[in-house]
Amino acid sequence: MAVIALDLGGTKLASALVSKTGVIQQRQSTPLDARTGKGVGTLIRGQVRRLLDFAARKSIRVTAVGVSVPGISYPKTGAVWAPNIPGWKNFPLREVIWLETGRGTRVAMEGDRACYILGEAWKGVARNCRNAIFLSIGTGIAAGVMADGNIVRGAEGIAGSIGWFALSRPFLPPYVQTGCFEHHASGPGLARVAAALLRAPGAPASRLDAEQVQTPDIFAAYSEGDPAAKAVLEQAIQYWGMGVANLVSLLNPEMIIFGGGVFGPATRFIGAIKTEARRWAQPVAIRHVKLRVSRLGGDAGLLGAAKLALLLNE
Amino acid sequence: MAVIALDLGGTKLASALVSKTGVIQQRQSTPLDARTGKGVGTLIRGQVRRLLDFAARKSIRVTAVGVSVPGISYPKTGAVWAPNIPGWKNFPLREVIWLETGRGTRVAMEGDRACYILGEAWKGVARNCRNAIFLSIGTGIAAGVMADGNIVRGAEGIAGSIGWFALSRPFLPPYVQTGCFEHHASGPGLARVAAALLRAPGAPASRLDAEQVQTPDIFAAYSEGDPAAKAVLEQAIQYWGMGVANLVSLLNPEMIIFGGGVFGPATRFIGAIKTEARRWAQPVAIRHVKLRVSRLGGDAGLLGAAKLALLLNE
Repeated sequence: MAVIALDLGGTKLASALVSKTGVIQQRQSTPLDARTGKGVGTLIRGQVRRLLDFAARKSIRVTAVGVSVPGISYPKTGAVWAPNIPGWKNFPLREVIWLETGRGTRVAMEGDRACYILGEAWKGVARNCRNAIFLSIGTGIAAGVMADGNIVRGAEGIAGSIGWFALSRPFLPPYVQTGCFEHHASGPGLARVAAALLRAPGAPASRLDAEQVQTPDIFAAYSEGDPAAKAVLEQAIQYWGMGVANLVSLLNPEMIIFGGGVFGPATRFIGAIKTEARRWAQPVAIRHVKLRVSRLGGDAGLLGAAKLALLLNE
Repeated sequence: MAVIALDLGGTKLASALVSKTGVIQQRQSTPLDARTGKGVGTLIRGQVRRLLDFAARKSIRVTAVGVSVPGISYPKTGAVWAPNIPGWKNFPLREVIWLETGRGTRVAMEGDRACYILGEAWKGVARNCRNAIFLSIGTGIAAGVMADGNIVRGAEGIAGSIGWFALSRPFLPPYVQTGCFEHHASGPGLARVAAALLRAPGAPASRLDAEQVQTPDIFAAYSEGDPAAKAVLEQAIQYWGMGVANLVSLLNPEMIIFGGGVFGPATRFIGAIKTEARRWAQPVAIRHVKLRVSRLGGDAGLLGAAKLALLLNE
């Protein structure tokens, strides 16, 4: 037997046929391009159909479907809200999948951060952990939380929205859009901080250009000893350390796994982040937590979605 | 049938015989006074014995014992670490209770914050909530967290240590002792902030005395319009609001219940705390959360301990 796993991101759809033991038997990936609303639904139907055909040819029984969605799923109705896909305010995703599988097939859906931590705890660096957090830092900042083996979803399924962590007083107007943590320390946040620093009076000499600095430029300039890049990343390390400290003091996890586009290049700073977090966090909890980088790469969501589907059979 | 509930605090021991439906059938409470180590154990044995005698006289069968401890319990060994009771570094509490009940009786033990939220979710303001947080602000600051009906304990049982929340940069030396949130916004924190404010150049006129200001004085002075007291509590509201915001963004609870010695007198500020939290928190999550004050008063821990014991029978 096997399950179908779908990992719907903001820019692409990946899917796979995954065995009970986590072996990916067949996979596919397609950019969303300009697709919206039903167009994304059609893409999903196509991938599901091809995986069902593959399974039929190999005489593999498909028992369930698991989906990682870039937003919130509503288990009762089977609908999904995905803010970055136009027309997915209340999209009937389960119904769309059933058009291919038939209504007898069970479909589990979760937000991507829940799937990331499920994937890491099943097949990644967090294997055997019952208390672990996937900390995604990229375009946004969010956390997938597992507490005593259970995914923490919250009352409306939006737990883990830590881009909104309050880490610095006073409140600044741009926090309204993104939250304090995300404003200062997401990928775009780094570029914002750099541009502001470069425009400020007495700015350090820098190869970076305030008008067009992008996040990767900052890491490249840092590697060449650029003082402005150094200042930007030292401040980011403080914010990342404070964010980690707050997760550790509140949830006392065994492990925090860094992922997202920024980790990536910021992986070299994990030691410095731990040092900063140690200043702020509950001392026993910070001593015991391990900080790691995802080793599943792009597959954490896919494997998490597969695990979701497999959990339906337990 | 009934269970025995024990609520061991830093200064007193309360206990009760509690029915399956949460009715307290008999209760007692004794100050710990100067007792330490085994002396506290002897006190516990005496209360357990009297409750067992009471139950025997009324022909009530006692099925289990639940204990709220001011520290960390180790379920495997039945030992307890309670930092404020001398000699309770690894105290064999379950063995001590078994001396009265016999080894056949099941004993459940949890930290006080877990018991508070269990009590509130069973018989208090959080009835019917599956995602709720007890936020205790008094001598220290800590949270008891229930996520999807489960108590969040963390890997070492120290989840909820939010006195260590990082809320304000830069890091100040006294944070090493208590954590940032607790330093600024616990009961003793308010007195510290007031003393520092009163000693600062250009301090507002005040009836408060920097050398001997105590937390209750600040609330009394506030009621009389004292500008220094107003400044202290306005800053505290900012910190409390940021702390609430971080809990809400990360855990998306239905309800936060304020308790501890400060709530109490700070209850009047809950509206202002919500307003402050709304600036910082994930917007959907903060809109849905209810902020409430405990209505169980001193009984939240006792009822939570009873619920712990009853859960053993399920």
